[in-house]
This record gives sequence, structure tokens and C-alpha cells, in this order.
Amino acid sequence: MKRMVMKFGGTSVADIGRIQAVAERVVPFVRKGYQVAVVVSAMGKTTDGLLFMAGQLGASDRREIDQLLATGEQQTIALVAMALRAAGISSRSYTGPQAGILAEGYHMEGRIRRLQPFLLEEDMEEGLVPVVAGFQAASSKGDVLTLGRGGSDLSAVALACALEADECHIYTDVEGVFTADPRIVQKARKLRKISYEVCMEMAVLGARVLQARSVEMASRYGVPVYVGSSFTEEEGTWVMRDNVNEKLYVHSVTHDRSVAKIAVLGVPDKPGIAAGFFGLLAESGIAVEMIIQSVMRGDMNDIAFLVRKDDLGEAIRVTTKYVEKVGAQGVNFDTEVARVSVIGAGIGNHPEVPPQMFSVFAELGINIDMISSTALTITCVVEAGRAEEAVKALHRKFVEEAAPCE
Amino acid sequence: MKRMVMKFGGTSVADIGRIQAVAERVVPFVRKGYQVAVVVSAMGKTTDGLLFMAGQLGASDRREIDQLLATGEQQTIALVAMALRAAGISSRSYTGPQAGILAEGYHMEGRIRRLQPFLLEEDMEEGLVPVVAGFQAASSKGDVLTLGRGGSDLSAVALACALEADECHIYTDVEGVFTADPRIVQKARKLRKISYEVCMEMAVLGARVLQARSVEMASRYGVPVYVGSSFTEEEGTWVMRDNVNEKLYVHSVTHDRSVAKIAVLGVPDKPGIAAGFFGLLAESGIAVEMIIQSVMRGDMNDIAFLVRKDDLGEAIRVTTKYVEKVGAQGVNFDTEVARVSVIGAGIGNHPEVPPQMFSVFAELGINIDMISSTALTITCVVEAGRAEEAVKALHRKFVEEAAPCE
Repeated sequence: MKRMVMKFGGTSVADIGRIQAVAERVVPFVRKGYQVAVVVSAMGKTTDGLLFMAGQLGASDRREIDQLLATGEQQTIALVAMALRAAGISSRSYTGPQAGILAEGYHMEGRIRRLQPFLLEEDMEEGLVPVVAGFQAASSKGDVLTLGRGGSDLSAVALACALEADECHIYTDVEGVFTADPRIVQKARKLRKISYEVCMEMAVLGARVLQARSVEMASRYGVPVYVGSSFTEEEGTWVMRDNVNEKLYVHSVTHDRSVAKIAVLGVPDKPGIAAGFFGLLAESGIAVEMIIQSVMRGDMNDIAFLVRKDDLGEAIRVTTKYVEKVGAQGVNFDTEVARVSVIGAGIGNHPEVPPQMFSVFAELGINIDMISSTALTITCVVEAGRAEEAVKALHRKFVEEAAPCE
Repeated sequence: MKRMVMKFGGTSVADIGRIQAVAERVVPFVRKGYQVAVVVSAMGKTTDGLLFMAGQLGASDRREIDQLLATGEQQTIALVAMALRAAGISSRSYTGPQAGILAEGYHMEGRIRRLQPFLLEEDMEEGLVPVVAGFQAASSKGDVLTLGRGGSDLSAVALACALEADECHIYTDVEGVFTADPRIVQKARKLRKISYEVCMEMAVLGARVLQARSVEMASRYGVPVYVGSSFTEEEGTWVMRDNVNEKLYVHSVTHDRSVAKIAVLGVPDKPGIAAGFFGLLAESGIAVEMIIQSVMRGDMNDIAFLVRKDDLGEAIRVTTKYVEKVGAQGVNFDTEVARVSVIGAGIGNHPEVPPQMFSVFAELGINIDMISSTALTITCVVEAGRAEEAVKALHRKFVEEAAPCE
């Protein structure tokens, strides 16, 4: 008996008509004999409406915000279960806590700790379709903990792992994963299949796909994830284990303007200095990406790195304090930067890719500020205003002019 | 340290402004050193909106309706907790299940089975104000069970009992309990104090006061209940143990048009016949009131009784089947009836009250169809169209012309 988890995001359950459409999408799988569990988000703008009310009260207590937000998905699960029954399928709804999704950590950014989906398994074995509230879990104290941005996808993938599902379907308002953002690159192609690793890099580097947390969890348990639209019948994208080969497939060209660059100048070159500095940033909850250290003159280093723009103020505060403490020469920052990335299988083994990429920038007269590369990516930090132009040229070079990838 | 439970109904939390007003009403009690727990209903028309969506799906699954409805109160608790914090009072919200309110029975009509409000007690002892969702409880399976009509009042009173509170305040959109419906009787007076027993009779006989279930629970544990408006500063009504005396106080004249009369004609007068018949009605979940049996001719009885109009169709079905089975002569029913009641302490010991009441009807030329009396009430069933007229005359006779009661 095949098992699957089907997840529907907020736009896919935005009103009663959409909720009935969700039921219509689930029914054929049940009729074919699949054991199906459904995971849903809050309806459309529900979460925004709840946050607006909390805002009117000037509320910042995260436990209460979690308690409030959790009602959004709870409404959807009941309505979806009703719609399934109306469509002739037995169904039962579960909040995150009722479904046995346990989390730990801070409110509004809970991290899944354990899943005990016994009730769901019983239902599925009896032919019922459990409908589970995404985004929410129980803390060890019985409080509601929400899972942060992309939390509903994570709930779905985590349940698929715990239920040993054969497939996890994520239905959303985009038709799948593309070689570039179709709003920028007209010739962007939908990908039929990508590996977990590539998908994770894409998520981190700015593509509108699954959150990296969800992909990582799917990868860890090897659950194939399908990403597709709940609005059309177009075939979407499978995220799954890669075929074994060494060919070069450039899957995607992305850019990301949500980062800012910080440079610390003239840092004394002593052991432990970098560890101390990035330790302080981590303690302040600031995620740092693309650290580049260059030995410049004698016993001094310059250290540059990227942070989320949201974290910039705090990051500069921490950095300035550190500069004073260790006697570095200064700090500067730049918010008008973007990272532009080429992502694909085999890039690390194809040394021709980096120089080809740099030539594209050179032809456009775009200055490259920072460079980093991994087995699957090459990323350049450039002036923000020219990022889209670069994406188009790189997509032409690596996707349109190359052999079609899967 | 005095302890109290304060409950606010739907109109009292209808929007953010009203929720802030709730906080303002709670704060002074906390400042005075009271340990306060707050119980709230869903905001204004939230429940209706949720039921409308369920209706669009043609949903009748009561478990899912409970799951859906429970989100209404859950939103209010979070917002009220936020408003209390904004007003400088530490607070924490609890759904019914989180608060340790356990129930059994059918969905949408759960009955409280046990309370385990340990977390609330901890909070109160630490000076926090727990805010609890009324109307909802956990089943032994961890499902949400709602408690039926008036369920939020019941949650509040039950918590007051379990927390051994000194007072339970029920805030609503009426200013207290009146000697008659002020919309009908201009001279209706607000009562300062009534006994549990009288309040229970009033609830059953059509006054707009607390549900009988809540009053019964308060009575059982002796918790004084205050009923007042959250919109004004007018003093409301206390429902509490009576002073010991035998004076006659007529507290209220009520009428109730929500009932219908059924008469079974020519029932063979054999032992067990009535038991069998009312047993059948009870099995169908039909509550029966005011049973009157009259021996008419030889070995035949007529039996008349009242049912809720909602139950009439089912009651006639059951009755007709029974009439055929035992060979009775027929069934008739009347929906155009009302019961009119005089309710007060000492009525049973003051034999002048029934004849005085009957004379009022006689003077108005109103025919009395059925009569029943208890220690605290005399009720007559009359033609529905003349009930209000009778209420006015009885109020004049027993309340306005009598010595003022408390």
C-alpha cells in the first residue's frame, strides 16, 4: 500500500471553493488505494489578519502570538476534513499537538524534536484521511509552538518521513522549480527533477522553492518531494535522490538581494580572533554567510561576510564593539549588494564553469566583489542594481545555450 | 488572598477596543490583590462565521465542527492575554484542554467530567492572570469537545468551583437579573440578589439569565455568582445562598414561547404505560416538561406535556408510533402556547398565591390550559398571543404592588 502526504499552502485553501478543490485533488489518490495524510496552512490572509489584531494591542509576547496564530490552521483542518467527507472520503482533523508533532526552542521559531503520529497511522490503516495543521507543534509543556517561516512545508515533510511515506506532495501557487525566476528570465524552464542538494542550494541562494530546512529533512530520510501548483494540472518538479553520474547540469541561476555585506578592516592576525568574533555574532542569533578572509598586509587581515538585511543593525553593533575590543582598524558595510549564483550538479568537477561565469560579468562590465564556490554552486557578490541583467546573461550562457537538462 | 473568576461573553470581546476594556475591568481587581482567572467566549459573530463556512460545505460531522469552533475562543484568549500585558499585568492564555478542563459525552454537547487546573493555580499563585477559553474541553481521546449552549458560563463557574474561588463574575450585555423582561414590562426592576434555586427556575422558565446548568454547578459548590454588564458601571445581580426566612418574595414573572404542547388522548390506564412512553421520548433525546395526566373516563387517561419546539417533529413521530402500539385514541399538538410563570422564594408556603394568579388570568379573560407548581414557581400554559399581556398584569400584582424585594 502506497503512502503519501499532500500539503496545501495558504493560497490553495484561501476560500471554501479552493478547499473543495483540495478535496477534489485528494480523492483520486484515495480511490487509487493510496493511504493519504493531508497537511494544510492557514487560509489565505488569515495569519496576517491575526497578526494585525495582535499589532493593535502592541503585543510582542511570542507565546500568545503562537496561541493566536495556531487557530488559522485549526480552522483549515476542520474545513478540509468536512470537504473530504462531503466528497465521500472519511476524514479526521488534527492540530499539530493532536497529531503528535513535538517541538522545542523559542516560540515562533520552534524546531521539530519528535513525531508520534500514532493516531494518523491508525486512521490511514482504517482508510481515513487525517488532515493535519501545518506550522504548529506542541512544546513539552503543552504550549503551542509554531515552526517559523516555511513551517507548514516542514510539517509535511517531517510527517512524510515519520509515516515512511513514499511521496510528499507540496501544492502551492507556483508550478514547480524553474531554472531562473520566470518573472525576470523569459526563457526560464521548469525543471522536471532536481536533487536534494541542488534544491537546498537554490533555497539558500534565493530561488522561490522549498525552504532549506524542509529539503534537508527530506534528504535525510530520502522521501521524494513533489512541488506543483494546486491551480493547474501542469506537471511540477520532483526533488529526490540524484542519478549517479558526473555530467554537468546547470539547474538554476538565482539572485538574492536580501543580504548586506559587512567588512572588518585591519584585524590583527592572531589565533582565535575569528572564532571569537563569529562566536559573538552567533550568540546574538545572527546568521553569517560567505565569510571571506584575505591576508592583506603583514599581520593584519580583512574579513568580509554577508548577513540578512534584517540582522544588519544588530550585526554592526556587535561588530563595532568587537573592533574596539581587539583593536581592528574599522568596519564598513554595503546594503546595495546582491549575490548571483549558478547552481547545478557537477559544477565542482567542471573547472571551466568559474572562468566562463566571470567572463559573462566582464562582458557586462560588472565588478565582482566577493566569490565563493562549493561542489554545486558558484556565487558572486555584485552591485545590486545590475543583478537581474547578470542573471539573464548567465541563464543564456549556462541554460539556454547548453544541452537541455532534465 | 481572595480568588475570583471573571467571565466575558461574545459581545464583551467583540473587537480590539472591547478587549482592551476587558483588560481595564480586570486590572483593578489584580491591583487590589485578588488572584484572578479570566474566561472568555469567541469574539462577537466569530462562531456564526465559522458555522457559515461549515454550512457551505454541508458539514454535519460534529467532531470537526467542534475542532473548528474551538478556534474562536482560542483567538480571544491570546488577544486578551496580550491586552492584559499591554495594561501591565502578566498573563498567560490557555485553551480548554490546556487549562485541564475535561469533558465526556457527544461532540457539541460535552458535559464536564473533571477539572485539573494545576497550571492556572500555579499562575495565580505567581501573580499571573490565566486567560481560559470557555465553551471547550478535552475528551479522554484528546479531541476538542464543546459544551453546548451557555457553555462558556459553565466553564467559568466550573473553574470557580475547582479553584475554590470566592466569587465568579459573569459579564454580559445585560445589566443583571430583572423581575421581568424589561423589553416587555416597563417597570421591571433589577434584582440585587437571588438564590440559586430561584435563578435555576428562572433559567428553565424563560428568563434571560444564566443557564440552569451553570447555576446548578455554582449551587452545588456554593460559589457566589455575580451577573452584570461589561458595558456600564451599573451594579448587577448576585446569585448566591439565600438568607434563611419564610417571607414571600416574588422575584420574577417570566414567559416562554419556545415550547409546544402535545396531548395523547385515550391512553389505556395500565401500569407501565407512562414509563414506556416517556422512556421512548428520552431515548430519542427529547426533553419533556410539565407532564399532566388526567383520569377522564373509566380506564382511559389523557396525557399532556410540553416539549421544545425544536424537538416537536421528532416528538410527534415517536408519540404517533406509541399511540398505535398501545391502542390509544389519538394525538394532538399545539405550537401556539406559552408558559407564564411566577417565581419566588416562599411561594410553596403561601397558599394565597395560586388563586391570586388565577384571578389575574380570569380578569383578562385568558383561558388556562395547564397548571403546575413547585416550591418556588407557579406556571400556567396559556394561548401564546396573550402571554405578554399576562406577564404585565402579573408583574403589577406580584412585584409592583408588593413590598420591594431585595
